[in-house]
Amino acid sequence: MRVALLGVGLIGGSIGLAARERLGAHVSGWDPVAGTLTDALRRGAVDQACADAEQACRDAEIAWVAAPVGALSSAIDAALRNAPRGCVVSDVGSTKRTLVAGRSDERFVGGHPLAGAETAGVQHARADLFDGATWYLTPAAGTSGVLYERLHRAIAGLGAQPAAIDPELHDRLMATVSHLPHVLANVLVAQAASALDAGGPLPATGPSFRDATRVAGASSTIWTDIYLANRDALLERIDETLARLGEVREMFSAADRDSITSWNEAARADRNALLSAGAGERDELHELRASVPNRPGVIAEIALVLGRAGVNIVDLALSPSPDNSQGQVALWVRGEQHAARAAQLVGGLGIPVVRA
Amino acid sequence: MRVALLGVGLIGGSIGLAARERLGAHVSGWDPVAGTLTDALRRGAVDQACADAEQACRDAEIAWVAAPVGALSSAIDAALRNAPRGCVVSDVGSTKRTLVAGRSDERFVGGHPLAGAETAGVQHARADLFDGATWYLTPAAGTSGVLYERLHRAIAGLGAQPAAIDPELHDRLMATVSHLPHVLANVLVAQAASALDAGGPLPATGPSFRDATRVAGASSTIWTDIYLANRDALLERIDETLARLGEVREMFSAADRDSITSWNEAARADRNALLSAGAGERDELHELRASVPNRPGVIAEIALVLGRAGVNIVDLALSPSPDNSQGQVALWVRGEQHAARAAQLVGGLGIPVVRA
Repeated sequence: MRVALLGVGLIGGSIGLAARERLGAHVSGWDPVAGTLTDALRRGAVDQACADAEQACRDAEIAWVAAPVGALSSAIDAALRNAPRGCVVSDVGSTKRTLVAGRSDERFVGGHPLAGAETAGVQHARADLFDGATWYLTPAAGTSGVLYERLHRAIAGLGAQPAAIDPELHDRLMATVSHLPHVLANVLVAQAASALDAGGPLPATGPSFRDATRVAGASSTIWTDIYLANRDALLERIDETLARLGEVREMFSAADRDSITSWNEAARADRNALLSAGAGERDELHELRASVPNRPGVIAEIALVLGRAGVNIVDLALSPSPDNSQGQVALWVRGEQHAARAAQLVGGLGIPVVRA
Repeated sequence: MRVALLGVGLIGGSIGLAARERLGAHVSGWDPVAGTLTDALRRGAVDQACADAEQACRDAEIAWVAAPVGALSSAIDAALRNAPRGCVVSDVGSTKRTLVAGRSDERFVGGHPLAGAETAGVQHARADLFDGATWYLTPAAGTSGVLYERLHRAIAGLGAQPAAIDPELHDRLMATVSHLPHVLANVLVAQAASALDAGGPLPATGPSFRDATRVAGASSTIWTDIYLANRDALLERIDETLARLGEVREMFSAADRDSITSWNEAARADRNALLSAGAGERDELHELRASVPNRPGVIAEIALVLGRAGVNIVDLALSPSPDNSQGQVALWVRGEQHAARAAQLVGGLGIPVVRA
């Protein structure tokens, strides 16, 4: 496996380390920041430091673009220009809608690993950064099934859990579970600091405040770009927060004990439901086999329909029929319930499917 | 030292354990919940299980009321009715303004240790629960200096840092650093759960979401009462959040890169300032001696003026003059800067003060 990295910071460097250690890959890297490649070589994150994107992408089978959000679009273009025909190109940006829109190259699949750290730079890269992390992928109608399969398996090999998702839904989810919490953390510290300015004692901040504001003032280099890139989805979420908080205000204003208790109990139930979302990881693996027409987009369609239903594809394998007109795809999912649901959903796409 | 506990749950039980272990106190306890006293005896949180508040308070030197917020007021009344003349009475409730208002008994000092846990009940009580925690006290104009000193020293002996504060400011601070984060956590989980209901996949929630919602749906038994008791201060904080979030909305809506960056950098500075609020704990202790008239309220005045300035009184000792008309108070504070400020502030009250 030959991997190209455009950008070798925390994320790119960690992909490099994991790809070399766990996939036995040969990794070529390029980075525009002076000194980064020297560090990456020293850390063992790349085998080869390249002079430009062209050299890095030469002969690559997977090219990952791991640039900051603001530089992503042009870096993806550079990768697609320079990568060979049979190379899958992906990125690691934390918003997807605008990046994916208008890119119809069958080699491109948007990606976003839910991993990271408060630190940045290749010096903090780790081979285990992605262990157990969800790694979202946004295949499209034109995506090559063979290339999607390669990317999916490589990501699973890095230790992560690939999950297909629509780019719009991805951005809406990220706005809710990541960008909005960052905004609220910033607002909370500003309020507390203004209480300080009012001449009060330094507030002895309890654990709830520390937890709620841990991400306040996260790196502007990264976050200004993220806020701007996901502005539409984030504005919708902020409007929802304003509306919900307005309702809470009315409820408190009315001193309505029963409503307050019901609202708090609902939050408890919501929290439990959200925390149990990752459950079932120890369920048994089930295999499904589907016969698919040999055309682009079919694998993307299957991955997306399962992703939408929250069914995680642990592994997938594509094998073409002898005459190349048909293919067979094997899917592995965890738990009887998910397996039954997957069979139903794939069948619903008009694709013959059997439980192996 | 004889300590009475009215309420022997997590907080009362932890006071009992620490008072017995660290102050060598004899602890009498009463609790209205069946079985609690048996558990408290078994855990070693009390020496004596009492039939009622009257029996528990008999001969007590400090009586702590550790009841849920909703039952606090009547329990404090019971303690004041039953405690001897020379006994200081305090509580551990998380709001102070309404509790303190109208209570002019020289024996009563409102209190609030910033400690607790997600668990409740005497079975989770720990002698080290208060180690290093700020323990707010709200002495008033009528508070006895001798009794305030006893309470201050006992709390320091339990391992906490007593800090005097105005009840209004206390409630405003708690609304900002505790109650508002709980409200926002509830709102965040509701938004994420409704994204789920919309048919999306289970969101793979990142660490920022988990941190921001750790306190969502905290025990309604405790929190409905807290929300109601601190309603006024909390409504003001919610209004401030609505206003600030509205401004963020406009800034994002205008896609104003520079403003977004400045706002985020300000949050980073605020967070750093808030985190450094507990610094200086290793500074050297300085002693101040002040001659005070022997009238109630003087010690409260000194404690409050230092509390307002964020100067922490590590220890204090009162000694009456031979004819009892005057007294001398010794104060220990950390760091040269705080010592100088303390001397200035106490002098500003018209009280002669020297650095020892």
